[in-house]
Amino acid sequence: MSVTAAKGFTAAGIAAGIKENGNPDLALVVNTGPRLAAAGVFTSNRVKAAPVLWSEQVLKGGLVSAVVLNSGGANACTGPKGFQDTHATAEKVAEVLSLNAGEVAVASTGLIGVTLPMDKLLPGVEKAAGELSAHGGEKAAIAIKTTDSVHKTSVVSRDGWTVGGMAKGAGMLAPGLATMLVVLTTDADLEADVLDRALRDATRLTFDRVDSDGCMSTNDTVLLLASGAAEVAPAYAEFAEAVREVCDDLGRQLIGDAEGASKDIKVEVVNAASEADAVEVGRSIARNNLLKCALHGEDPNWGRVLSAIGTTSAAFDPNQLNVAINGVWVCKNGSVGEDRDLVDMRYREVVITADLAAGEETATIWTNDLTADYVHENSAYSS
Amino acid sequence: MSVTAAKGFTAAGIAAGIKENGNPDLALVVNTGPRLAAAGVFTSNRVKAAPVLWSEQVLKGGLVSAVVLNSGGANACTGPKGFQDTHATAEKVAEVLSLNAGEVAVASTGLIGVTLPMDKLLPGVEKAAGELSAHGGEKAAIAIKTTDSVHKTSVVSRDGWTVGGMAKGAGMLAPGLATMLVVLTTDADLEADVLDRALRDATRLTFDRVDSDGCMSTNDTVLLLASGAAEVAPAYAEFAEAVREVCDDLGRQLIGDAEGASKDIKVEVVNAASEADAVEVGRSIARNNLLKCALHGEDPNWGRVLSAIGTTSAAFDPNQLNVAINGVWVCKNGSVGEDRDLVDMRYREVVITADLAAGEETATIWTNDLTADYVHENSAYSS
Repeated sequence: MSVTAAKGFTAAGIAAGIKENGNPDLALVVNTGPRLAAAGVFTSNRVKAAPVLWSEQVLKGGLVSAVVLNSGGANACTGPKGFQDTHATAEKVAEVLSLNAGEVAVASTGLIGVTLPMDKLLPGVEKAAGELSAHGGEKAAIAIKTTDSVHKTSVVSRDGWTVGGMAKGAGMLAPGLATMLVVLTTDADLEADVLDRALRDATRLTFDRVDSDGCMSTNDTVLLLASGAAEVAPAYAEFAEAVREVCDDLGRQLIGDAEGASKDIKVEVVNAASEADAVEVGRSIARNNLLKCALHGEDPNWGRVLSAIGTTSAAFDPNQLNVAINGVWVCKNGSVGEDRDLVDMRYREVVITADLAAGEETATIWTNDLTADYVHENSAYSS
Repeated sequence: MSVTAAKGFTAAGIAAGIKENGNPDLALVVNTGPRLAAAGVFTSNRVKAAPVLWSEQVLKGGLVSAVVLNSGGANACTGPKGFQDTHATAEKVAEVLSLNAGEVAVASTGLIGVTLPMDKLLPGVEKAAGELSAHGGEKAAIAIKTTDSVHKTSVVSRDGWTVGGMAKGAGMLAPGLATMLVVLTTDADLEADVLDRALRDATRLTFDRVDSDGCMSTNDTVLLLASGAAEVAPAYAEFAEAVREVCDDLGRQLIGDAEGASKDIKVEVVNAASEADAVEVGRSIARNNLLKCALHGEDPNWGRVLSAIGTTSAAFDPNQLNVAINGVWVCKNGSVGEDRDLVDMRYREVVITADLAAGEETATIWTNDLTADYVHENSAYSS
């Protein structure tokens, strides 16, 4: 399924030898049309990898014929040589597929500050082109994995049209833990500006609110390609909902596979004065290392939730804050609430509800706990 | 030494039974004059513990006769009862020492959301008052420990006058890991407004830039008391320097004893366009969990430094950034620099130098690495 669930797309995933362990590391996704519309969102990190700088330019035209993605190297902080390498990669794809390089998006993930082995990557592009298939979506999803333990795909089908996609990473769009790369495809017949709006609306509520460890990647890339092959132009609301559904599913899979995590934590902020307040409070709670440790230890330490809320500029009265953990209101009116021993934390999913008692807006942020495994994985592995 | 190094102060530290393990948990510091001037700075967390709310009011008068500090309970998020308990504690000190309760500052540290055992704390105040001594500074420093492995004191003596102090905590003022409590004393004969200026100037450059884990406490308190007993009024610059020196030393001790840490990391930001830029970049680097894990693993992963810089609003050109780790310029002009294998990371202290190439301002932030021990300590221990 993945990126080839929608009609009008072929894909491939191969081992080009970029990764020293011989695992798959190069993916190609090709839009066979008839339409070649596309939209993209990228990391907001000001230190951007070469492929991000390249693809941002490509996407400005709203037209993408192919996407080439590699794992095994981020091509970030690699100077002019890095940009030349990205350009050469796009040119190679254009050459073997008879396209214009300006229609080829490039995405990379892996270690920062290391140049890509172009002597392996360019022959890999030829090999991948030779294996393009309307059933190649899963192989493509596998080839973009880095520390991912599983590949991530999602598909939503509606009346005659489909949105599908693949994702890699254990984190978030902006900010992003490990780099997040996502390619979504649809056979709906829509123009680039509609795709752009739907993609931004979806990422704002999904990938943007997946905050595993507060770190922002130099390479995060989310692309949406439309082939028009279904010859159906759904209404905006219906299409946007399908895109959001796929993004939500992929985002949830990213959290579920976050490096070293043992808990998936849903932070719901309710009764905020504004959505911005709700997001600020949600992020502050999601990024509190002490709380993340406590939740790992299955300790419903609501004091750490309150101290995280207290660092924000959101509207609230400290004496009216309420906090529930897995449905037990352990903090009421800024003070001791229901018995914390009532909180059952044995399961992987933990829900923290922070009631600001200041309005009617809400936001949900997903995060993970902080574990010794996270430390081990990120101290032993140069990524 | 500690808070009784300066003339005109007595102190005591005893076990009142607030901590279940029987360790010392109550400290008393008394200014015997002739002057009773004082200044204080407190957490900027908007969720403030009862003793912070109380002491902020006391310090407004610029006059403090005594400080009572307890470990074993933060008295934060404890509602009206918590504030009554703080008030009762101050009243008890006032009663046994024949003072006005409005001149008694209170500080607490320990678990949030639990009320203090007043049936043990109030008799403890009487006991501590009976043990007040001009040599009691060290016992007081011991009694305020929570997860601290050692007690922290510092003294600077100048021509006829002294500044001394004690600290507890493994973190920072604002933000603060575990609560930071600091009491500084001096026998210099200075007025409250001079103390206030010197304390703010010092904390801005010391405790404010000690950022072990980015978490902000509800209870952080730093007090400076002057007895005037030395009958010397030093010039402002000389006095401010001594206060800063003591704060710097105590801050360095806090980092050196941070929960579970194996590295003390000095983040120097140089050639920034403004001091605010330098501080923002320094904090962003200091709070990057992925980098903190890498440094724990003795991996000079400068890519994570660049991705942290990239999340800030500071003035810089990504292609002009330079980064040194322990003096080796591993990143030059935003790209690969000197050989990372040259970086020696065997020692506890690590120095990261980030050159923004955008001006002439600098700032230094101290932090720690992120370790499995940090996770263990903060997931197993409700604090």
